[in-house]
Amino acid sequence: MYQLGKKVRMSLFGRSHGSCVGCILEGIPAGMYVDEGMIERDMALRRPHTGIGTPRREEDEVCIAQGLVKGVTDGGPLLITIENRDTDGSRYLMFKETPRPGHADLPAMAKFPHHDIRGGGQFSGRLTAPIVAAGSIAKQMIAAEGIGIRAFTRSVGGVVDACERDFDAASESVLHPTRACTEEMDSSMTREILDAASEGDSVGGVVECITVGLPIGFGGIWFESLDSEISAAVFSIPACKGVEFGRGFGISGMRGSESNDPFYVDEGVKARTNNMGGILGGMSDGMPMVFRSAFKPTPSIAKEQDTVDLRTMTNGKVAVTGRHDPCIVPRAVSVVEAVTALVIADQMRRGL
Amino acid sequence: MYQLGKKVRMSLFGRSHGSCVGCILEGIPAGMYVDEGMIERDMALRRPHTGIGTPRREEDEVCIAQGLVKGVTDGGPLLITIENRDTDGSRYLMFKETPRPGHADLPAMAKFPHHDIRGGGQFSGRLTAPIVAAGSIAKQMIAAEGIGIRAFTRSVGGVVDACERDFDAASESVLHPTRACTEEMDSSMTREILDAASEGDSVGGVVECITVGLPIGFGGIWFESLDSEISAAVFSIPACKGVEFGRGFGISGMRGSESNDPFYVDEGVKARTNNMGGILGGMSDGMPMVFRSAFKPTPSIAKEQDTVDLRTMTNGKVAVTGRHDPCIVPRAVSVVEAVTALVIADQMRRGL
Amino acid sequence: MYQLGKKVRMSLFGRSHGSCVGCILEGIPAGMYVDEGMIERDMALRRPHTGIGTPRREEDEVCIAQGLVKGVTDGGPLLITIENRDTDGSRYLMFKETPRPGHADLPAMAKFPHHDIRGGGQFSGRLTAPIVAAGSIAKQMIAAEGIGIRAFTRSVGGVVDACERDFDAASESVLHPTRACTEEMDSSMTREILDAASEGDSVGGVVECITVGLPIGFGGIWFESLDSEISAAVFSIPACKGVEFGRGFGISGMRGSESNDPFYVDEGVKARTNNMGGILGGMSDGMPMVFRSAFKPTPSIAKEQDTVDLRTMTNGKVAVTGRHDPCIVPRAVSVVEAVTALVIADQMRRGL
Amino acid sequence: MYQLGKKVRMSLFGRSHGSCVGCILEGIPAGMYVDEGMIERDMALRRPHTGIGTPRREEDEVCIAQGLVKGVTDGGPLLITIENRDTDGSRYLMFKETPRPGHADLPAMAKFPHHDIRGGGQFSGRLTAPIVAAGSIAKQMIAAEGIGIRAFTRSVGGVVDACERDFDAASESVLHPTRACTEEMDSSMTREILDAASEGDSVGGVVECITVGLPIGFGGIWFESLDSEISAAVFSIPACKGVEFGRGFGISGMRGSESNDPFYVDEGVKARTNNMGGILGGMSDGMPMVFRSAFKPTPSIAKEQDTVDLRTMTNGKVAVTGRHDPCIVPRAVSVVEAVTALVIADQMRRGL
Repeated sequence: MYQLGKKVRMSLFGRSHGSCVGCILEGIPAGMYVDEGMIERDMALRRPHTGIGTPRREEDEVCIAQGLVKGVTDGGPLLITIENRDTDGSRYLMFKETPRPGHADLPAMAKFPHHDIRGGGQFSGRLTAPIVAAGSIAKQMIAAEGIGIRAFTRSVGGVVDACERDFDAASESVLHPTRACTEEMDSSMTREILDAASEGDSVGGVVECITVGLPIGFGGIWFESLDSEISAAVFSIPACKGVEFGRGFGISGMRGSESNDPFYVDEGVKARTNNMGGILGGMSDGMPMVFRSAFKPTPSIAKEQDTVDLRTMTNGKVAVTGRHDPCIVPRAVSVVEAVTALVIADQMRRGL
Repeated sequence: MYQLGKKVRMSLFGRSHGSCVGCILEGIPAGMYVDEGMIERDMALRRPHTGIGTPRREEDEVCIAQGLVKGVTDGGPLLITIENRDTDGSRYLMFKETPRPGHADLPAMAKFPHHDIRGGGQFSGRLTAPIVAAGSIAKQMIAAEGIGIRAFTRSVGGVVDACERDFDAASESVLHPTRACTEEMDSSMTREILDAASEGDSVGGVVECITVGLPIGFGGIWFESLDSEISAAVFSIPACKGVEFGRGFGISGMRGSESNDPFYVDEGVKARTNNMGGILGGMSDGMPMVFRSAFKPTPSIAKEQDTVDLRTMTNGKVAVTGRHDPCIVPRAVSVVEAVTALVIADQMRRGL
Repeated sequence: MYQLGKKVRMSLFGRSHGSCVGCILEGIPAGMYVDEGMIERDMALRRPHTGIGTPRREEDEVCIAQGLVKGVTDGGPLLITIENRDTDGSRYLMFKETPRPGHADLPAMAKFPHHDIRGGGQFSGRLTAPIVAAGSIAKQMIAAEGIGIRAFTRSVGGVVDACERDFDAASESVLHPTRACTEEMDSSMTREILDAASEGDSVGGVVECITVGLPIGFGGIWFESLDSEISAAVFSIPACKGVEFGRGFGISGMRGSESNDPFYVDEGVKARTNNMGGILGGMSDGMPMVFRSAFKPTPSIAKEQDTVDLRTMTNGKVAVTGRHDPCIVPRAVSVVEAVTALVIADQMRRGL
Repeated sequence: MYQLGKKVRMSLFGRSHGSCVGCILEGIPAGMYVDEGMIERDMALRRPHTGIGTPRREEDEVCIAQGLVKGVTDGGPLLITIENRDTDGSRYLMFKETPRPGHADLPAMAKFPHHDIRGGGQFSGRLTAPIVAAGSIAKQMIAAEGIGIRAFTRSVGGVVDACERDFDAASESVLHPTRACTEEMDSSMTREILDAASEGDSVGGVVECITVGLPIGFGGIWFESLDSEISAAVFSIPACKGVEFGRGFGISGMRGSESNDPFYVDEGVKARTNNMGGILGGMSDGMPMVFRSAFKPTPSIAKEQDTVDLRTMTNGKVAVTGRHDPCIVPRAVSVVEAVTALVIADQMRRGL
C-alpha cells in the first residue's frame, strides 16, 4: 500500500513520530547525475513557512545512502532517508479515545488495532517529505526528455486566482510562501490563512499543476491512462478531495462545439484551446497537461469539536492543540509536483 | 492496459467494430449464484434511450461462456462476451487524415500506427458494455456483504439537480431515461439534450455515485486507498474529466470547523455531516461514500469543426456524421456504478 | 492466478469439460503479421499422437476473434478460443469421493468446494492448448529479434538420450511423435511408452529446451531474473517436478575450475563450455540458454490404487479409466516452448 | 527487480561495497511481536564459518529502524538495514576489463554501463543478508499458524547425504558449520570444502528444504502455484542452477504406479509416500513440502582462468584473489529457508 509505480517505483516507510521517514526509489536509469541541490530546493519549498505554517521544524536533510556512486545513479535502488528530529507525541494519546473529526483516527483504529496515533502515525503528512525527495529525482529524470512540471496555488479559502496561468507564471510561485503566482495573490492568500489561524481555524484550497513537453501520444490508455494514474497518485496525498483535468467540472456545462479543442497547424499540430487539459483518450495530445486538485482545510483545529468517546460510547469533545499548518495547500504544491513527476517517469520507463 | 483490479480482475478485449467485445473476470469466489436477470437489467440501463441516445442498436446479449456451472461460479475465470451487430465503419476512415477534436484520434495515431479508427477502435465507449456486465457481477458479490451502489445524473449541461440525494433517491433514477432522480429533472434534462442535438451539438454533465454499507476502516491506504483506486477507475471511463469526493472542490473554500464532520453516537459512531464523502485517510468512515464525476460533452458533433489535414499538414475541417449520443451522461451512470463495484469487490478480496 | 506475464500477458480461461478453453493475450505490438499456419503447426505438435497418446480427439482449431485486422495485430488484446468438442465427463464424478493419487483432486476440493472435477476442471492439461497458441504468437514476435526456441524430449522413463543436442538437433524433434531428436531415440521411447500403457501404467520423462539468439545482458536480475521467471512458468505446467539450467544438479558435484565457462574471443565474446546454460546473474551471457524440466508419469493409470473415501473417511481404492496419455512428455514439449517464448517476449517488452 | 512478493513484499537495496544493505518489508500484520533474538540466530547461521568460509567479517547487526513499536509491528513497512563494515573494493576494478568466468560481470556490464563491480555490486551475495533477516520475520509470522521450515545441506561436491531426512533431522543442521544433518556428514563435507580450497578451487552442492504444517489446499494454482513461486524465489538466489520438488528429476524414470503417492486415513488424509514433495496441482497436499536446489561452485577461484580482455578484445587470463567462500552451500541454506518463508507468508496473506 506504500508503493507507487511499476518500473519507477517508490516504496515509502516511516511514521510521523518514528526516528525517520524515507523511501526506496527503484527504476531510475543508471548513469544519471542526481543534483542534490535541486532536491534541497524542492524540500525547502515543502517546508512550512514561518507565520503561515506549523511551528514544527524539521531540517529535512535528505540522505541518499544507497544507489549513488559519486552522485551518479548505479541502476540499483536508491535509499532515501530523512530524520525526524522535532517529534513530540505527548499530545496525541487522547485521540485514541476521542477520534479527531476529519482525521483518519476512527477508520485507522478500526482497521489497525496497533495503530501508532502519534502525529497520525503512518497516515501522517510527514510521509510526503520522502515523496518530494523522490519526485525531485523523477523530475530530473524527465527533464532530460524535455518535460517540465510546475504547480502553484490556485486558491486558498475564498481567495481565488482567476487568471489563466501558464508554465512560466506557475514557475514564479517558488518565490512566494503561499505558492501563489503573484505577490498580490500571495498577500491575499496569506491574510486568508492568518485570519483562519487567528480564530483557531483552518482553510483549504486548490493546487493547479502544469506539465509541458509531453509528446503527442504519451501515456497509457484505459486503466493505465495518464490521467487515471495521476489522479490516483494525487488522491493518495492526504487531504485531497478532488481532481479535475482541463476545464474539469466546468466542462459539464458546456456544449461540445465549445469544449472540443480545435486543431490547427503550427510547427506540428496544436490546439487553439485547452479545455481537455492536454489529455485525449488518456494520452497527451501535445498541449500542456493541466489539472487541479482540491485540498480540504487542515482537520486539526484548536476549536472545540464534537466527537465520541470510544471507551464509554458517549458523545464527547475534542480540541487539537498540537503543532499544525492552518492551511496545507502551500506545502501540498510540492507534493502534487512530486507525484506527477513520479507517474510520468514511471509511464516513460514502462514505454507508455 | 486493459486490466482493472488485482484479485477481482477484469481484462477487456474487443473493439467498436470487431465481431465482439468482452472481458475475462477473475477472482469472483466459487459458489456464488450469478443472477443473469440482474446483468440484463444493468445492461438495459446502459443502452441508449430512444430520442436522447445514439440510433446505433445493440442488443447487448451477455454470454458467460466459461466460469459458471448451472449459474454458479466455479472459481475459475468468467469469460464474458457481447456481440457487435450493428457496426458501420464506413464513415470513419477520413478521421485518419482529419482527426476529430475532442477524440483520441490524434494521440492514438501517434502512438499506434496500426490503430483501427472505426468507432474509435479500442478507445470506443463500446468497451464499456463488458465493464457494465462485469460490474453487475461484482455488485452481486458485494451485495452479499451488505454493500449497495447507486449512481444517478446530477447535471446535464445547464440543468443541475441541486437537492441532496441519498441512496434511495438515487435508486429512483433507474426509472428515468436520463437517470435523473425525479421526473421533473428528467424532463428538464431531456429537453437540454434534445436542444443540443437539434443544433447538431452535444452536452456534458455530472454523475453522482452513492455507496452504502461499507464498514468503518474498509479500503486501502496511501497508494491503494479507496478513493485513489476509485478515481483511477472512473478516470479511465472515456470522457471523464473530473472526480471529487464529498464536498469535493467546494471544500476548498470552507473552514476546517465547517468541513470536519463531527462524530456522535447512534448505534455506533456516525457523523452529523458528510463533507468527506465517507472517506477519511483513504478508508471508509462508515458514512455513505459519495463522489461525483464530470463528463465532457460527446466530442462527436455534426457541426463543422476546425482540424488539420495530416497528409498535407494544412488546416482543414471535419464534421462527424456517424451515430452518436448527444449526451453520454445517462449511459455513463451505469459505467460509474460498474467500476465502483469492481474496485470495492477487488479491495474486499485483497483484504483491504 | 490464471495470468502469466506483465507486459506480454496471457490470461487463461476455460475448463477441461466446459464449452471452450482460451486466453487473452495482451502486449503483442501492433502491426505484427500473425502467421496462423505456424500456430496450427504448433498446435499439431501438442496433439496426442495415435498409439502413444490419449484417444481424446480435439481438433484444436484456434480462433483469434479479436485483436487482428486482416492477420495483423491492432495493438489491442488478442482473444484466442479453442472449442472443447470431445468431452465426456461421466467418469469423473466418483473422484469427488475417492481422490486420485498424484492428481490435484484432494487439495482442489479442500480449496474450492465448488470444484468441477470433470477432466480435472481448471487444473486440466487441456488449458495448455491456449498456452501453446499464445506461445506460438510470442515465438513469432521474438523470432523477429533473431531469437529461436526449440525443445525436445531428453528422456522417457528409462530411455535417456545421452548425446549433446544443439538447436538444430532439437529442431529435428518435430519429425518424431515422441519429440525425440532422432528416429532411434523415437522408437525406443515409443516402446517405453507402449510398454507402460500395456500394463495400465504410465511413464515420466525430461524435456530439454534450447533458446538461441538472446543478446548478452538480456533478462532481469534478482527476483525478475530470466531463469527465475522461466522456472516459475515451467513449474506451472501440470506435472512438472523439476527445472535445471545448464549442468543443473550435476553442477553441484563439480569444482569451480571445471564449472566456470571460460571466455574467449570469436567475433565477440563466447564461452568454451556452457555449464551455466547461458545464464549468469539471471541474465543471458550470450550462449544458448539451455534448461531441462522433469515431468512425472501421468497420474491417471488404469491400475488400481489406494486412496481414501472422503464420505466415510475410510481407506478405499480407485482406478482411473478415462482417456489419458500414458506419457505426457511428448505433448509437454510444446508447452515448455510456449511458456519460454511468453516469458522472453514479456521480458523483452519490459525492457529487461 | 529487487522486489519479492505481493502482499508480504520485500524490497532490497544496497550493494556489496556501499555503506549498507537492507530492505523494506511490507505486509507483516500489525501487532506481531518480533523476536530479534531469533533474527540474530538466523543471521549467525548465514555468517561464514571460520575455516570453511570467507575471511570477510561482517557482524551483520540487523537494525529495524521503522515499523516496530516496542518490538511489536505497527502494520507499516519495516525498514531493515545492515551495515557493510569490512569492505575492500580495491581488487575488483580489473574485472571490468577481464570479466570473471561464472560471474555476472560480462552480462552486467553489457546491461548496466555504470555497474559498480566491486564485490559484484548489486549482484552480490551480500544482498542475501537482508533476505535472511526478512525471512526470519516471515518465519515467525507463519510459525504462528503452525508452519515450520528447515533446510540443510544435502551434498557438497562429491559428498552426498543419502539418508531420508525429516524436519527434525534437518533441524539438527543448525549445530554443524556445513549445515549437514549429522556430525559425520559435517566432517566429510568440511574436508571436501577444505580440499577444494587448498587447491585454490571451489565446490558446489545441494540444499534441501522441508516445510511442515501447510494445510491441504494451501497455495495458489497455475501461474501463482506454490511450487512456481518458490522455484522463482530460489532461482533468484545467486548461484542456484536447479530446483526440484519431491523425487524431482528422479521421478522422470518412474512408473505412475510407483510415483503416485497413495492416500490412506490417519487422523485425516495422509499419503504413504511423498514422491510429490507435498505438492499436487500447485497446492499443498498436506504432506511435508520438500524441495532441493542445486548451487554451483563459487565462481571466484584463485586458479588462473581463461577470459577475454574487453579493451583489446583479445584472449586473456584472470585469477580471483579477493575474499570468497570456497563453498557457498552452507550459507545458502539460510537463504533458501528465508525465501521459502517469504513466499509462504505472502501466499498466506494473499489468501491462496
